[in-house]
Amino acid sequence: MVDSHDNNAPHQVVIVGGGFGGLYAAKMLAKANVNVTLIDKRNFHLFQPLLYQVATGTLSPAHISSPLRSVLSKSENTKVLLGEVNDIDPEAKQVIMDDQLLPYDTLIVATGAKHSYFGKDNWEEFAPGLKTVEDAIEMRRRIFLAFEAAEKETDPEKRRALLTFVIVGGGPTGVELAGAIAELAYQTLKKDFRNIDTSEAQILLLEGMDRILPPFAPELSQTAAASLEKLGVIVQTKTLVTNIENDIVTLKEGDEVKQIAAKTILWAAGVKASAMGKVLAERTGAECDRAGRVIVESDLSIKGYNNIFVVGDLANFSHQNGKPLPGVAPVAKQEGEYVATLIQKRLQGQTLPQFNYIDRGSLAMIGQNSAVVDLGFMKLKGFFAWLFWLVIHIYFLIEFENKLVVMIQWVWNYITRSRGARLITGQKDSLEAKTAQNPSHYQSSEKRLPVNV
Amino acid sequence: MVDSHDNNAPHQVVIVGGGFGGLYAAKMLAKANVNVTLIDKRNFHLFQPLLYQVATGTLSPAHISSPLRSVLSKSENTKVLLGEVNDIDPEAKQVIMDDQLLPYDTLIVATGAKHSYFGKDNWEEFAPGLKTVEDAIEMRRRIFLAFEAAEKETDPEKRRALLTFVIVGGGPTGVELAGAIAELAYQTLKKDFRNIDTSEAQILLLEGMDRILPPFAPELSQTAAASLEKLGVIVQTKTLVTNIENDIVTLKEGDEVKQIAAKTILWAAGVKASAMGKVLAERTGAECDRAGRVIVESDLSIKGYNNIFVVGDLANFSHQNGKPLPGVAPVAKQEGEYVATLIQKRLQGQTLPQFNYIDRGSLAMIGQNSAVVDLGFMKLKGFFAWLFWLVIHIYFLIEFENKLVVMIQWVWNYITRSRGARLITGQKDSLEAKTAQNPSHYQSSEKRLPVNV
Repeated sequence: MVDSHDNNAPHQVVIVGGGFGGLYAAKMLAKANVNVTLIDKRNFHLFQPLLYQVATGTLSPAHISSPLRSVLSKSENTKVLLGEVNDIDPEAKQVIMDDQLLPYDTLIVATGAKHSYFGKDNWEEFAPGLKTVEDAIEMRRRIFLAFEAAEKETDPEKRRALLTFVIVGGGPTGVELAGAIAELAYQTLKKDFRNIDTSEAQILLLEGMDRILPPFAPELSQTAAASLEKLGVIVQTKTLVTNIENDIVTLKEGDEVKQIAAKTILWAAGVKASAMGKVLAERTGAECDRAGRVIVESDLSIKGYNNIFVVGDLANFSHQNGKPLPGVAPVAKQEGEYVATLIQKRLQGQTLPQFNYIDRGSLAMIGQNSAVVDLGFMKLKGFFAWLFWLVIHIYFLIEFENKLVVMIQWVWNYITRSRGARLITGQKDSLEAKTAQNPSHYQSSEKRLPVNV
Repeated sequence: MVDSHDNNAPHQVVIVGGGFGGLYAAKMLAKANVNVTLIDKRNFHLFQPLLYQVATGTLSPAHISSPLRSVLSKSENTKVLLGEVNDIDPEAKQVIMDDQLLPYDTLIVATGAKHSYFGKDNWEEFAPGLKTVEDAIEMRRRIFLAFEAAEKETDPEKRRALLTFVIVGGGPTGVELAGAIAELAYQTLKKDFRNIDTSEAQILLLEGMDRILPPFAPELSQTAAASLEKLGVIVQTKTLVTNIENDIVTLKEGDEVKQIAAKTILWAAGVKASAMGKVLAERTGAECDRAGRVIVESDLSIKGYNNIFVVGDLANFSHQNGKPLPGVAPVAKQEGEYVATLIQKRLQGQTLPQFNYIDRGSLAMIGQNSAVVDLGFMKLKGFFAWLFWLVIHIYFLIEFENKLVVMIQWVWNYITRSRGARLITGQKDSLEAKTAQNPSHYQSSEKRLPVNV
């Protein structure tokens, strides 16, 4: 049972994290007789499934972001707070932020996951991952800068490394990145360069398992690999990455060790739980799995703390078939909604049966007119899968404005095969050329100390 | 006379800078019997007149940027080069880049202007200006972060400073920024916050002269000031800023000195020529004015060097009425086109009369349904001026895709009064809250040194 400290004050729900888990919980609680506070480090919800399209110059960050305040503007019982939760005190029922303490009756932790380099954190410098808007802009910068540098490079070996793109990890993100970069190199950019032939670019997709898209049916994995190869991607399965350093990827295929010189290496291989997993473990004694995810009860609460829930990528929920549910948006969404419903039931003195994930299938985009969709009872590939992918992604974009603009952008890109959002931005070495000429202009203000004149 | 070194090789035109001056020169030369190389530090042309809409969360950077390569993709005689010109050698007819020398027969320098703090460069830290995409994202970050911090602030004085926005400079950019921030505070954000009333925000527009929009007819300046005041902006003319430090603006109105505590101070006051002005002066003996602009001949060439032209914000062209032409897009565009035409004429052994700027008027947006347009023979204000402003800006957006997407975005914003692109991004303290929890994720890869494991 969850009960309020003060019988008159409404039940306080604090949600940490505005991703799919946290946001859908908040939306579901909009009409409930509770007070909700949603805390996030960012002022927007990010539609991560389309982040690869920002990284490859199709969409802008704002297209796939919705300000949390405006999404929840009409939920009068809901406050949004920009900030970071550093700690919790489950006995005092408080979350601890930098500048304030926040009491809760029920806590939902939905802080998600971040990249994992399996302990090789030094790889990150050479092989950035894709989780935040900044990550996507950094990937975009590297991809388009590689073509620019190749255009200027006269040494054939260096030029080859500049035109080699290695994507580590053959899950949906890796597949989608590889397909999009292939379309860039072999179609979009072809007529834009004078010294290089962008279709000489090599795009390698590396996967450790024996097939790409392991969550899909094997026949779809095969279809996807064949479609990628048709686009020009080299798909290498059963390939382990043993080192990434100084723009060199070291591979192991069986017993053979190989080195590939590539200026652009993208990481789509592994994730681990965000730091709140460790905090929860320390404060509540909850168990975590090897990826740092919190092992939750069958109602998504933490053992011994029925007023603390963990949802989304941070949770390890294994009550369904012994295997933890995958870290994908639909799982987070359904978990968030379940917990929101459970809180309301409990306040009415009722309860709910255990959480049960309804798997509606998996989908992955490969390229123009090509995708794979595995709905369990039905498998789609090619054009219809592609259309299905578009409709589903448009449908789930949180705000109507984004749906409209993304739809138009896609129609336009489809017709023209252009990529309008291919800006190289970011203040740090956004050009190879140093900005020595005009440092105050490009290095912006923040690093400079005031100088008295 | 300009002649090629080698009679067989086509005439080499090198253009430095892909703003309005450089890009329109390149476009005009697309069909000419010359080889063109366009060099820019960025890989895109930026439509600066709409940059304030990025800074205030209406448009995304990609909406107002066009990749230079794709704009010039069909100009088969044109190469685009990403890089920076550090120096020129007018005797050897070469531009000097970091990694290469580039010979030219004719050189067009169009590197534009940057902010000027009138020698008080330490003000930049507290009062960023608006010239680049990064500048706009930084302004956007500051504006939206101020509201977020105010929502959390309990001290009324600090909250007041957080909700005070000072815009220094009453030209078109200052007016447009002030109007857009007023709409944000008094309309868009009103229902999104729970602790603060965003309509308590104070927006001050400071101008040193006796009226805002000095290039416009006095009656339009009055209209603009009245419209801004109706929107809620406090317009202060005849006001000099004497210091900006630690979020305090010190003003002088006549003899009265005043201090205003404001967390968000935006600089729209002055520009100076980019560093190429100095380089040209040193290498060619060209004279520069006080703002660093190169004083050009009546055909936009440099005295003594009839094969070096300066166009756009970097040029001081005073042959028309003794006053230098203003640093606005139409001047740059017409200058670029003039020089491109002159080059072609000269190759045919002909010449052109001196450059003559055709002033088609000035326009400034104030807010929803409100703008001022001064066409000389006709003055518009209110709704029709606003409609005219929209049409003109859509018309001049370089690429069709951008026109379409911007139009839809504007229609949507008009109907809903929402601002979808209000992301707080950028890696450096993008939150007040430190990212201690998850430093590797947010501080990205670039600052970290590889650590061997």
